[in-house]
Amino acid sequence: MKIGILGGGQLGRMLIQEALKYDDEFYTLDPASDAPCHHISYFTQGNFNDYETVLEFGKDKDVVTIEIEHVNADALAELENQGIKVVPNSRIIKTIQQKILQKKFYEENNIPSPEFEIMDGSSDEIKMPLPFVQKMNTGGYDGKGVQVIRNNEDMKNLWVQDSVIEKLVDIDKELSVIVAKNENGETKTFPVTEMVADPKLNLLDFNVCPVFLSEDIDSQIKSITEKFLNAVHSPGLFAIELFLDKEGKVWVNETAPRLHNSGHQSQEGNANSQFEQMYRVVKNLPLADTDTFTFSGMLNLVGAEGFSGKVIYEGMDDVLKLPKTYVHLYGKTETKPGRKMGHINVLADSREELMEKLIKVKSMVRVIA
Amino acid sequence: MKIGILGGGQLGRMLIQEALKYDDEFYTLDPASDAPCHHISYFTQGNFNDYETVLEFGKDKDVVTIEIEHVNADALAELENQGIKVVPNSRIIKTIQQKILQKKFYEENNIPSPEFEIMDGSSDEIKMPLPFVQKMNTGGYDGKGVQVIRNNEDMKNLWVQDSVIEKLVDIDKELSVIVAKNENGETKTFPVTEMVADPKLNLLDFNVCPVFLSEDIDSQIKSITEKFLNAVHSPGLFAIELFLDKEGKVWVNETAPRLHNSGHQSQEGNANSQFEQMYRVVKNLPLADTDTFTFSGMLNLVGAEGFSGKVIYEGMDDVLKLPKTYVHLYGKTETKPGRKMGHINVLADSREELMEKLIKVKSMVRVIA
Repeated sequence: MKIGILGGGQLGRMLIQEALKYDDEFYTLDPASDAPCHHISYFTQGNFNDYETVLEFGKDKDVVTIEIEHVNADALAELENQGIKVVPNSRIIKTIQQKILQKKFYEENNIPSPEFEIMDGSSDEIKMPLPFVQKMNTGGYDGKGVQVIRNNEDMKNLWVQDSVIEKLVDIDKELSVIVAKNENGETKTFPVTEMVADPKLNLLDFNVCPVFLSEDIDSQIKSITEKFLNAVHSPGLFAIELFLDKEGKVWVNETAPRLHNSGHQSQEGNANSQFEQMYRVVKNLPLADTDTFTFSGMLNLVGAEGFSGKVIYEGMDDVLKLPKTYVHLYGKTETKPGRKMGHINVLADSREELMEKLIKVKSMVRVIA
Repeated sequence: MKIGILGGGQLGRMLIQEALKYDDEFYTLDPASDAPCHHISYFTQGNFNDYETVLEFGKDKDVVTIEIEHVNADALAELENQGIKVVPNSRIIKTIQQKILQKKFYEENNIPSPEFEIMDGSSDEIKMPLPFVQKMNTGGYDGKGVQVIRNNEDMKNLWVQDSVIEKLVDIDKELSVIVAKNENGETKTFPVTEMVADPKLNLLDFNVCPVFLSEDIDSQIKSITEKFLNAVHSPGLFAIELFLDKEGKVWVNETAPRLHNSGHQSQEGNANSQFEQMYRVVKNLPLADTDTFTFSGMLNLVGAEGFSGKVIYEGMDDVLKLPKTYVHLYGKTETKPGRKMGHINVLADSREELMEKLIKVKSMVRVIA
């Protein structure tokens, strides 16, 4: 089958890597000539935000999917009109692309997400008391396009553009759950993972699985995933990012309509990875089991501050000596501060052992130039 | 690093698939334009048996390796002269390529292998009593080039060419052990696996791990792998195929200087796969842990008799519904009787459950056209 992917980054690369177990042809579209997918797929250099480029790319594929949500959804809608299968469909991509539509989607489907109001270009009519969170309607990614407005001083930095103004949650834990639905309507949910964010870069730092939660919290999450899967009239793999607040209530922070950094530990930690699951969604195959038999965790390999240029993974040889430790690099030759260059998955027999190993590994390796 | 592989078949494909976790460039050489490695590497169509072709292919690589042993070893020796790293080295490839040299290698290093004599083109001087095994000196592969001569009637079929004439072992079990050695001299051994051969096609049928053997047999195998790793003055990953005879004695049947079908279950059954290990050998990295935490088994997907043409995997959708079951196809579009098209790995909590699952899966799927 000819599978087209909008985006040629690491998520696409790991999807293709997993899918090399099967017999499909992968085509990728990315503006960067050194995109991680370039040499492992039929590669087209081009802009996935451009209507004509996406239309041209998709027209001879059996199915078109995404590895980034900031794509031209109108072109995907036109491809659907032309009878090309698009996974997830253009409607849900459009909904999730725009934070305002995304919030309305939660509201309409009784999915708990923090109280919000819409700011359309002017700050005058904001009723939300400080502190609050501002999320740009479009263009947010990897923590960009999101800011906390704590006081009147911060108000000067308010972005004057369409945004969601959201109540600031008093966060106890950041959780994530990856769900999948195929065209036949079959659904599967991965075990919940917990994220520990690096406040400086706002990128995931550690992501661990499983998480032991109270029955009440488990059932809140179950209710959210069920409502979401029911409301989403599209096949797809979705990462639902959750906040658990200090009063024990679970809120949806946001959803990605694609493979997600918070699911990387599934590569060795679960019976099947998010990449295997995504492949099955795209092909409308029976969904894979998502059981976990061990403790697993992931840490991102992010370009260190002060280093730009040809990447060197300092300390990597020592990391490779560690048992149950799995290095995943993304085929990027150039590092820069904060760039996601790879990740490392670790398995362990207990949560304590896992955290110790993650902290140890993190201290051993540095992404420099 | 620029890694060149002679051969572009499924072993190379799975090596590259695994190594997509890292940042290397893979180049493959294969005569078939539709080779499994074609679209996932920089591909050169050409004959890996041809001196000039291999020399030309290898000259600008950082390291050259193989995924099939029937390559031009003289060209590899010349590449070594020119300062290109070849893994495994040309000398051990040459030794293993030729059954006569291979048998002498075992003899010289006190590695137990069945009693033999050399037949150089004429059957007149064979002293070995019937029944015996004839192995062609060169060109044997996947059970080809090997025949059992049981009686005077069979003697008419004796190949009149350089061969090894070997005592027929009264086989209780066929075992395999994969060993690895890097340039630093570090070595690792995978757990022993047991093969159940299909007498008709002489290809592996099931391959299971772990195997529970007596202390005496374990220690015979340990002695063989130690002697082998000591005698082999080359980095490499090697599959040592063993016979356990009915008197409890272990013999080396033959060795492959490469990735091997009997190691495929390591993909999901071991902490790291033979492909990860091979990658580390090629790059002279610390070797990976080979522990196994579960029962694992593999069955080959072989083209059914009577079907040639565009492949159909009948029953595959039902196989994909099974938990802890992993399908690996080789990207081959055309099937023919006996062609290895893929394999399926299965995990289980006991040997009994494993065998039941393997037999069930085997009954569910058929490779037809």
